Amino acid sequence: MSKAKASKKKQPVILITNDDSVNAPGIRALVEAVKGLGKIIVVAPDKPQSGMGHAITIGNPLRLSKVNLFEGVEAYACSGTPVDCVKLAVDKVIHNKPDICLSGINHGANHSINVIYSGTMSAALEAAIESIPSIGFSLLDLSIEADFTAAKKYARQIVEHVLNGKVPDKHLCLNVNIPKGEEKMIKGIRICRQAYAKYEEEFDERKDPHGRRYYWLTGEFVNFDKGKDTDVWALKNNYVSVVPVQFDLTHFALKQKLEKNWKF
Amino acid sequence: MSKAKASKKKQPVILITNDDSVNAPGIRALVEAVKGLGKIIVVAPDKPQSGMGHAITIGNPLRLSKVNLFEGVEAYACSGTPVDCVKLAVDKVIHNKPDICLSGINHGANHSINVIYSGTMSAALEAAIESIPSIGFSLLDLSIEADFTAAKKYARQIVEHVLNGKVPDKHLCLNVNIPKGEEKMIKGIRICRQAYAKYEEEFDERKDPHGRRYYWLTGEFVNFDKGKDTDVWALKNNYVSVVPVQFDLTHFALKQKLEKNWKF
Repeated sequence: MSKAKASKKKQPVILITNDDSVNAPGIRALVEAVKGLGKIIVVAPDKPQSGMGHAITIGNPLRLSKVNLFEGVEAYACSGTPVDCVKLAVDKVIHNKPDICLSGINHGANHSINVIYSGTMSAALEAAIESIPSIGFSLLDLSIEADFTAAKKYARQIVEHVLNGKVPDKHLCLNVNIPKGEEKMIKGIRICRQAYAKYEEEFDERKDPHGRRYYWLTGEFVNFDKGKDTDVWALKNNYVSVVPVQFDLTHFALKQKLEKNWKF
Repeated sequence: MSKAKASKKKQPVILITNDDSVNAPGIRALVEAVKGLGKIIVVAPDKPQSGMGHAITIGNPLRLSKVNLFEGVEAYACSGTPVDCVKLAVDKVIHNKPDICLSGINHGANHSINVIYSGTMSAALEAAIESIPSIGFSLLDLSIEADFTAAKKYARQIVEHVLNGKVPDKHLCLNVNIPKGEEKMIKGIRICRQAYAKYEEEFDERKDPHGRRYYWLTGEFVNFDKGKDTDVWALKNNYVSVVPVQFDLTHFALKQKLEKNWKF
């Protein structure tokens, strides 16, 4: 094997997915952001999958279609959820674990409780379950014409950091949110915890032309968390927020209480 | 107000949902299990929603249809996910927070990593986010003819325990799994942590009649966790496993490490 070939083999494999679909500007921004850092492979949903959380497709088969959307990058549209994309990419596209999995850049915030509803973050978390270091990126701008300049800069910086061996845990999963606005407004990066902030739901009740009721999910975002170490605080103060995320949902403090007080 | 009316007003409101659909034997078993403990209201998916995780319906409106499936119990079939059911039940059916939310009894295990894919557990967790104490129940038997006798007994016992004021946290969420088999085989209840055990995926690749490839998600369950304090261990040793579950996904140990070692 030639030296060039050997060194080429060593470049990290970067799996990229998202939940806004393979056609979203955000995933294009992410591909551009990390260009040159490794071999990029894209496997992303063929349609928007926002709010799909950690859903997987059990009752239906999945499809993969090759697409030519990113210059020089192998890319596939998948008929399933973001989590399906990661599973299928590992087993049937890469036939191996990539060195890192990136998800996003999401059009809209995934701070606080959003992490649990977000297809973007669930795809990242799925990779972490499989011991693939992963990072989900979200920009606090829902617009299809959002400016990804700052998001791309910070995404590249954080990905380089992780690829340079700064992985303190094989199940590393980072939830990165980038404030909306110009790059010069951003003050830097903050390691944060997830805020207790959520939507106060109120369904919008309507009647269809046949007189039957239907409901649209809607709601107002409310921050119940006064902490200055949260992602919501950081973003409000123009920092990029980085929350390390875990998939062990055990509530250990509560477990201790129950062991002490619950007698059956 | 008469005394009878006043005391009637005080009975707890019990919201019941699941992910196997309002027609599943498991939800009927759960309704029967807790009969007499409060005012039961059922809001459950109109079709199977297994593996839907914490998905919510954003792009489509939701429907609610009254059903007469449970004697003397107000019940609705909902066109959405298990999490949608909880949100819609609170806002549009009960018009208030119920005293407890129960989910299940699921046909099949929801121990270890399953908690993250499970519609049953995501519905329970959604209630906990809303400060409604919640319990998800799962029986380790996928059969439509599963014997719910033991599951019903333990479900009632645990619900009574919680309703009798044993709620050490307003965000209480319990993941309860019941071993398959006869009641007399079960040794008791164990408070556990979530095992690191998961499915090793392998997609079953096929070709449709038109020669196009499609994939079925399949896999083998592997326990990587040797601990004797896990749900998988408890169930294997014929205990009912109870794992307290949280929705704060912050990985605090990793957060500390990053704060120390990550310099930007």
